[in-house]
Parts: sequence; structure tokens; C-alpha cells
Amino acid sequence: MKYTFVSLFPELIEPYFQFSILAKAKAKGILEFAFVNPRNFTTNRHLKVDDYKIGGGAGLLLQTQPLYDCLTHIKNQDANVHFIFLLPCAKTFKQVDAKRLCEKDHICFVSSRYEGLDERIVEEFANEIFSIGDFILTGGELASLVMSDAISRNIKGVLGNSESLNEESFENDLLEAPSFSKPFIFEKENKKFYVPSEFLKGNHAKITALKTTLASCKTKYFRPDLYQKHERKF
Amino acid sequence: MKYTFVSLFPELIEPYFQFSILAKAKAKGILEFAFVNPRNFTTNRHLKVDDYKIGGGAGLLLQTQPLYDCLTHIKNQDANVHFIFLLPCAKTFKQVDAKRLCEKDHICFVSSRYEGLDERIVEEFANEIFSIGDFILTGGELASLVMSDAISRNIKGVLGNSESLNEESFENDLLEAPSFSKPFIFEKENKKFYVPSEFLKGNHAKITALKTTLASCKTKYFRPDLYQKHERKF
Repeated sequence: MKYTFVSLFPELIEPYFQFSILAKAKAKGILEFAFVNPRNFTTNRHLKVDDYKIGGGAGLLLQTQPLYDCLTHIKNQDANVHFIFLLPCAKTFKQVDAKRLCEKDHICFVSSRYEGLDERIVEEFANEIFSIGDFILTGGELASLVMSDAISRNIKGVLGNSESLNEESFENDLLEAPSFSKPFIFEKENKKFYVPSEFLKGNHAKITALKTTLASCKTKYFRPDLYQKHERKF
Repeated sequence: MKYTFVSLFPELIEPYFQFSILAKAKAKGILEFAFVNPRNFTTNRHLKVDDYKIGGGAGLLLQTQPLYDCLTHIKNQDANVHFIFLLPCAKTFKQVDAKRLCEKDHICFVSSRYEGLDERIVEEFANEIFSIGDFILTGGELASLVMSDAISRNIKGVLGNSESLNEESFENDLLEAPSFSKPFIFEKENKKFYVPSEFLKGNHAKITALKTTLASCKTKYFRPDLYQKHERKF
């Protein structure tokens, strides 16, 4: 999988891939990263890339020309590139999208700063538009990191332990059950913290049953919307 | 506002604040950042911080002792600290949370790696638990960045243009209307890209009416769930 990140501030994105588990996948040749700055495509001799909104409104937009030329350049190099724009006005990214998008060969994330992008660019280039949630960020860079991270861990060879992929939250529309590690009784400042005793007895059928119950309770409490979906299925 | 980030991999978090708009807010003294690694609190002489799950299950958990001691240390330094754990099993972070949390003095984000945290730590320390969406990340670090970014832009003085805060998506449960910047007609390779003509005529009442219509259409199409909420209110 190749990721290309289009951003005015690639320095917000690049460091993440130097350290995370994705850096290991890059070293193994599973992932490839490129960073392209639309500023390098501006024909404005002062390298200006922002402008006022037509028709008024607070804030500045990323200009049309540098971004158009930048994305055209990327598309000319690889006609198969899948352009994903990160904008608050879009469908919300979900785990099913992460699983679907991990099959692509080349995804290009387009992040905006300022007050957004000229809508004409979106209409011309976007294969998909995503938001990562109902909150506003200072730019799309973090959203592109979140998406590439969530997508990548579904690509074979990126995570060490493929087993753990099947046991996790959102599979079956249930959150994951609580987990505990040693010691069985954790003591600190005269306080004792216990693990549910079922977990200690080694009866795996009982442990699994308890985990399912705990996962259901957690989902009902934190995410009644997910729980409804789960109930309809099972 | 002070943010403390607890993570085994602070190098995934720290660079973001060296470059983004948040770096400027830090220089102005509005934001303060600290990074604490639970590995520095382990009593294990091999600096081991992970362990198997009690009762079985794939993957490793962050150990109880180093994290307990780390969070106790932070709490001893500032009893007012607000601990936020980033876990997939939690309520979803929204813009209203960003606006509420920007009033805090000190937020400590606790990120997990591996397969998560011992539930006893969560019960003992967490003031709140958040997920940023229905997808799985390789760790909580990106989620903590997303939250701190979304919260910070609501703190006075962080963004240059406070006006733009009021016009944006999710206010009124509507997505933001499309925006356009110059030129009015963008020409490229024999193609012409137009701006809706209303935007050019300078009648601001008409422009506002058109923007509201466009925002409604966009919300209906991309986010029928938000649109329903909007309709109930207006």
C-alpha cells in the first residue's frame, strides 16, 4: 500500500511514521509513504496559497490553482490513485471502511487548513470524502493519520499478532470485554484491587461466557446505539 | 491549559506540537505540554511493561504497576488533574465535549498500546473515558492528539480568527455550506469550473439563504442522522 499525503504542513504528518508500528511495516516494504506540499505548485511568486471566500464568510480558503495542479501531478503519475478528502462535511469513517480501504494500492489523503477547500476541487478529484467524527480539528492532517493508521493495521504483515484482529471492539457491534493482567491482587497503599474470580479458575467456557456478558453490559452502557445494532443481528 | 500525555511512545505525540498552530499557542503561554512515559516507573529491572491477559485472549496488556505509579505521581503533583483515558470501549468524543473540556486547567490523556489496559487502573483513575470513533487504532496516541487539537481551538487566543468558530460544521447540527475562492471561473485544460452565480452578485441576504440551503442539502445527503437532530430543533 502506498499513501500519499497532500498537506501544507507535511511536518505534522511525517514524524508519526518514523516511530510507530507503521515504521516497522515501512521497513518491511509493506507500506510506502510520500508527502506532497501544494505550496510547491503555486504559480504565485510570493508562494501565497490562501485566499478569501467568494461571497463573504470568515476565514481563508486554500486556493484552487496550487491544489488543482498538485492533484493533477499525482494522478498523472498513478492513474489508480484513490483520492480521499478529509473534511468535516462528509460521511463518518468507520471500521468497515478501514477493512475495505486496506485493499487499495494507493490512497492519497488531501488535508485542508484554513477554512477548507474550494468545492470545485472536491468535485473534480475526490473519490471519497471522510470525516473522522463530529468535532472540528485545526486541519485534516490528524484525520489523515488516524485513517492511515486504522487502515494499515488491517493489511497483512503490519501487526505481529493477526489473531488479535478478530477479538476486538466493533466486531459484532460489541465493545471489547474488560481485560486484566497480573498480579491477580494488586496491592497499593493499603488498597487491594481484585480481578473477577472467574478469570482465575481456568475454565475457558466460563471465562468466555463472562466476557460476553461484560462486553454486552459495557456496550449497553457506553454505546446503546451499537447495542441495538448488535441485538438486531443476533 | 496544561496537557499531560501518558504514553509508552511520547515520540508519536510530541512532534505535532512543534509545528502546528498549537505550537504558536504554546509560545504565547496559552498551552503547556508535558509527556510522561510509564516505562520510567516500572520496578521491573528489564523495563518490561507488558504482560499476558489473565484468563487468556490474544495480545498483551500494559502492566498494572508502572501505570498505577505513573498516574499517582501525576495526581500527587496536581490534585486537579482531569484524567481522560482513550479506549475503543467508551462514549464517542463530540464537539460539545471539546467546548466543555476547554474550560479545564489540566487534562491528562492516558493512551494505551498493545491490547489495552488493566480495567482496575481505569476504574481507579479515569475521570472520563473517550473513544474518537468506531474504528481501531494501533494505540491511543493519535486519539489524544485529535482530542487536544479539537479542545485547544476553543480556548481563547489559540485561533487567530474567533469569528470563524461560530460558522462551522456541527453548530446547529448542520454541516458547513460549500465554499469557493477566486478565480470566479477557474480554467484548466479546456475545462471551466464555475462558482454558483449567486455568490458573485454581492447580495448578502441571498448568499446567506443559498448557503443555508446548500448546508441543508449537504447534511441530508452525508449525515441524515444529524439532519434529523437539526429538524427537531428548528
